[in-house]
Amino acid sequence: MASFSRLVRFLAKDGQTYYGDAILPAGVTDLAKTSQARVIRGSPWGRYDVTDQIADVRLLLSPLAREDIKTVRCLGLNYEQHANESGMPIPKYPVLFYKPVTSIGGPFDDIPVSLMAQEAEGLDYECELVAIIGREARDVPESEALNYVAGYAIGNDVSHREWQLKRGGGQWALGKGFDGWAPFGPGIVSSKIIKDPQNLKISTKVNGNTVQDSTTKDMIFGVAKTIAIISQGTTLLPGDLIFTGTPQGVGSGRKPPLWLKDGDIVDVSLEGVGTCTNKIEFAKSRSKL
Amino acid sequence: MASFSRLVRFLAKDGQTYYGDAILPAGVTDLAKTSQARVIRGSPWGRYDVTDQIADVRLLLSPLAREDIKTVRCLGLNYEQHANESGMPIPKYPVLFYKPVTSIGGPFDDIPVSLMAQEAEGLDYECELVAIIGREARDVPESEALNYVAGYAIGNDVSHREWQLKRGGGQWALGKGFDGWAPFGPGIVSSKIIKDPQNLKISTKVNGNTVQDSTTKDMIFGVAKTIAIISQGTTLLPGDLIFTGTPQGVGSGRKPPLWLKDGDIVDVSLEGVGTCTNKIEFAKSRSKL
Repeated sequence: MASFSRLVRFLAKDGQTYYGDAILPAGVTDLAKTSQARVIRGSPWGRYDVTDQIADVRLLLSPLAREDIKTVRCLGLNYEQHANESGMPIPKYPVLFYKPVTSIGGPFDDIPVSLMAQEAEGLDYECELVAIIGREARDVPESEALNYVAGYAIGNDVSHREWQLKRGGGQWALGKGFDGWAPFGPGIVSSKIIKDPQNLKISTKVNGNTVQDSTTKDMIFGVAKTIAIISQGTTLLPGDLIFTGTPQGVGSGRKPPLWLKDGDIVDVSLEGVGTCTNKIEFAKSRSKL
Repeated sequence: MASFSRLVRFLAKDGQTYYGDAILPAGVTDLAKTSQARVIRGSPWGRYDVTDQIADVRLLLSPLAREDIKTVRCLGLNYEQHANESGMPIPKYPVLFYKPVTSIGGPFDDIPVSLMAQEAEGLDYECELVAIIGREARDVPESEALNYVAGYAIGNDVSHREWQLKRGGGQWALGKGFDGWAPFGPGIVSSKIIKDPQNLKISTKVNGNTVQDSTTKDMIFGVAKTIAIISQGTTLLPGDLIFTGTPQGVGSGRKPPLWLKDGDIVDVSLEGVGTCTNKIEFAKSRSKL
């Protein structure tokens, strides 16, 4: 049983949704450009098989289906210069918070902004390396922590600063947990391929203008140290995502602030993984289910 | 297809694990005393049937299996006198945070305290009414919100004040999310039976001594208002739990503080639902998986 190298999930031209192992032309590393993939049968966290069947990609989806994601963890203030621009002290332990699974979105999905989130200004972007846990981990030492990582993706920890910082009683969840506010992808590059997650360029563009441009070298708590700390007394499960914090350059750190508007296009990119491209979509009405 | 009245999950005397509809003797409302139940076939969030098969209960388990729980939401500072004892202002919006699904425990499970959580004092209890979402809810008006609730349970939002308040960079997740730190149960009483969740006695005992003794009348954001606000732009899913905050009397609000110790027995009780009884169990070593 071969394990995946570059996991993608996609709507194929045959109308079916598949997991697949991306086939990229020589020299191309951006998974957003995946046009073909070897179909994977089975669950990424159970038994699966990378088959010889090749499918044509119509649209890349969130690289994990909702039922294959357990918990979405995020770190705040995990790059020193971002902590500085936020006026916050350098943390001694990872600053941990959660998003619900409903916040997950795909690499080309719109980011919906509800009427409540439109009540005030403050919509912001955060490019983040996302580590995907591949096997159950508890009380893991730092030296072994990366063995528990299935792979890496790039994500956007979309945040509303007014709801996050002023209306949440100090807890960030309310202003970061809306539907679709954690798009990630374009796929998951295996930790067999990315052996060192702490030496990757990471960046954001808004409408084509670079606004964040950094490297994962600058993380305060690297992926291994983060897992070593947050797995103490807490079991991480296959399909847990860890958004590992954002570098400097967020909209709220700029003078004047740069708030995202309806129709804005946000690209978040990670070296060796690719780019997610999401459009901001302001809701025009309540959408009662 | 009959719907459940009092959902329990249990290890039966036949060695199998079942969902069931509790059978209680006349006059008994504490689901912890369930000794027999009608076996339920199917998923509580899909098609299921309350059968005529009666099973004998050996041990009540967490009333939902982990795969039937999506997201665990919690509210902070949702009782006025608890906000006062915490020295915090009365919130204008629900103070929302999350726990991972791995924090779920059953009504009689031990509460494990890892070596990291033992590094400092500060282990505390919080009895909370738990609302269980029964169908997908988004942008729900307050007047309809309770129609989306499957039922109610009692839970303990176990918290470590040092890790929650001092080592988490202001975010509460690290000090509240350890394995087994959200025991709940003893079962789920249907919202057909509890029509008004805002008039129930709620209490905690530590080693038999009453330490919290209040009523859900005193909530700042009742269940309906909470759902109406947190479902704006955020889809709540069947199997989402909402821990709705704790009344006054927590250990950290006492002088001197009352911290939980190894071997302590904590009872949390909700009128019409019953009592969860959990023992504090300090780990003696790291438990690497």
